[in-house]
Amino acid sequence: MSIVLSGRWPAAEQQQWLRLLQEALPGEDWCLAPPADAVQAAAVDIAIVANPEPGVLQGLPNLRLIQSLWAGVDRLLQDPTLPPEVPLARMVDPAMNEAMVHTALWAVLALHRGFFDLHAQQGQSLWRQPQQLRAAEWRVMVLGMGQLGGRVAQALAAQGYAVSGWSRRPADCAGVQTLHGAEGLAQGLAAADTVINLLPLTEQTRDFFNAARLTTMKRGACLVNLARGAHVVEDDLLAALDSGQLSRAVLDVFRQEPLPADHPFWQHPRVTVLPHCAAQTDPRSAAAVVRTNVLALRAGQPLAHRVHRPRGY
Amino acid sequence: MSIVLSGRWPAAEQQQWLRLLQEALPGEDWCLAPPADAVQAAAVDIAIVANPEPGVLQGLPNLRLIQSLWAGVDRLLQDPTLPPEVPLARMVDPAMNEAMVHTALWAVLALHRGFFDLHAQQGQSLWRQPQQLRAAEWRVMVLGMGQLGGRVAQALAAQGYAVSGWSRRPADCAGVQTLHGAEGLAQGLAAADTVINLLPLTEQTRDFFNAARLTTMKRGACLVNLARGAHVVEDDLLAALDSGQLSRAVLDVFRQEPLPADHPFWQHPRVTVLPHCAAQTDPRSAAAVVRTNVLALRAGQPLAHRVHRPRGY
Repeated sequence: MSIVLSGRWPAAEQQQWLRLLQEALPGEDWCLAPPADAVQAAAVDIAIVANPEPGVLQGLPNLRLIQSLWAGVDRLLQDPTLPPEVPLARMVDPAMNEAMVHTALWAVLALHRGFFDLHAQQGQSLWRQPQQLRAAEWRVMVLGMGQLGGRVAQALAAQGYAVSGWSRRPADCAGVQTLHGAEGLAQGLAAADTVINLLPLTEQTRDFFNAARLTTMKRGACLVNLARGAHVVEDDLLAALDSGQLSRAVLDVFRQEPLPADHPFWQHPRVTVLPHCAAQTDPRSAAAVVRTNVLALRAGQPLAHRVHRPRGY
Repeated sequence: MSIVLSGRWPAAEQQQWLRLLQEALPGEDWCLAPPADAVQAAAVDIAIVANPEPGVLQGLPNLRLIQSLWAGVDRLLQDPTLPPEVPLARMVDPAMNEAMVHTALWAVLALHRGFFDLHAQQGQSLWRQPQQLRAAEWRVMVLGMGQLGGRVAQALAAQGYAVSGWSRRPADCAGVQTLHGAEGLAQGLAAADTVINLLPLTEQTRDFFNAARLTTMKRGACLVNLARGAHVVEDDLLAALDSGQLSRAVLDVFRQEPLPADHPFWQHPRVTVLPHCAAQTDPRSAAAVVRTNVLALRAGQPLAHRVHRPRGY
């Protein structure tokens, strides 16, 4: 049997991944997509993918595992030719988890302590001390309490913030007020000084932050979007910032990436643009995660981090 | 007996302090400096001070405790009329400790993850992802392992950073590589990607970051000064930034405060100016700290956070 690797990335990045994966799984046969011929295609039982071109996983009759190298599988699931019966696993990379916690922590610290405003003041050579609130006086709401959201919520609680975490279904998280359902959502959004979006992108969460939802947030709150650009209706967010309904947005993801050079977010004084770098998969640790799932499949053991396709994550 | 309150602050701030201190110590008699007459002066056994005007603590024959409301007592000790035999205690305020940990954490996260550079990129509408290093690959050195430095070092270690902490005398701190003496200083400075200054200001540490010392730092390192402006020779720091010896500085304190409007730090592309707001005493929690020491004095118990005057902190 052999493993096919397929992604949309620069050649150097693909070479780095292939080298690290070969080192992690030295006994395996490897090929790049598409396989050279029907014989090679029939030998493939595992596909390791990083948002491959749609259709690339067709014609692999013995495929038994699709392992994503990225945490989000929303784009992968949009490929109508994705073999429907093959187990799909997403990436849960400890280095990526650490990076996401750090980005969220940095954003909340900067919002809570006024460091974004101080940067603007510096441009005007203006010396003015902000009010110093305690962390316990700053309410943070985390939307999505999965692998990333749960860790982010706990890291913020450990710094003293008043943290709530919302998820579709009831969840439990030490030190965090957990909320669920429509009522919990309304309650959390009305109270939070900072809202961090870490929801999966599904048909239910697309356009989540539209004009109506933004109106339910506390006036003057801040939005931190670390999930997907399609969660946010960008014109509605701009209107909420301009009306003062929201005081600031920290955005890592956008409807179109790279963010077009003429997009109003770039030069908006109360928008911080990050170039989709909140948390990247680290190939060094991710290769070990892939190894674990490949060995589990070969041994007939349960796979980790399987995607529930109808749910979308 | 009575307590005198004396500081250089706006009237509204003095009123807030007086109100909170009276609530914390309801049985005490209070007056503002200077006492009205010799009778009132003779009744004063405790002075609570916030960098008072030099000379204001003279003529208090029964003074038994000088309690500072600020953590740093370097300016207070410069008053040659300060009664030499009276115990002096500095402020160790839990809310201030929290604020200092948060400012240091924010600065290290921003330096490690390149968020300052991304802000500059945003000004140019430039989408370019930085390299994502793990925290364990980013070395942070904390100078000064006292109340603040020790907490900062441990908080950074808890986020995964490779942390060393330097102090004059040997210290111990879980999860942190502790260094001391000239050899430890040279070793730490040569290795650190970020150096955080939390030293007390004494005759030994004045002008600590001069041209010679800056040369011993790792090329391209970042300096975070959260202690005192007089620790840094500002022209030498500017030269180190301009030569590339240092890549960035985050400065909360300056030789002259407020920082003069024409100072080159304000508009330097690789200097972040904070208006001495890294950590402020929170009157709400500090009043409780004062209460503890006042009650200790009245009960003949040992005082907390006494300053060793010859050492200077």
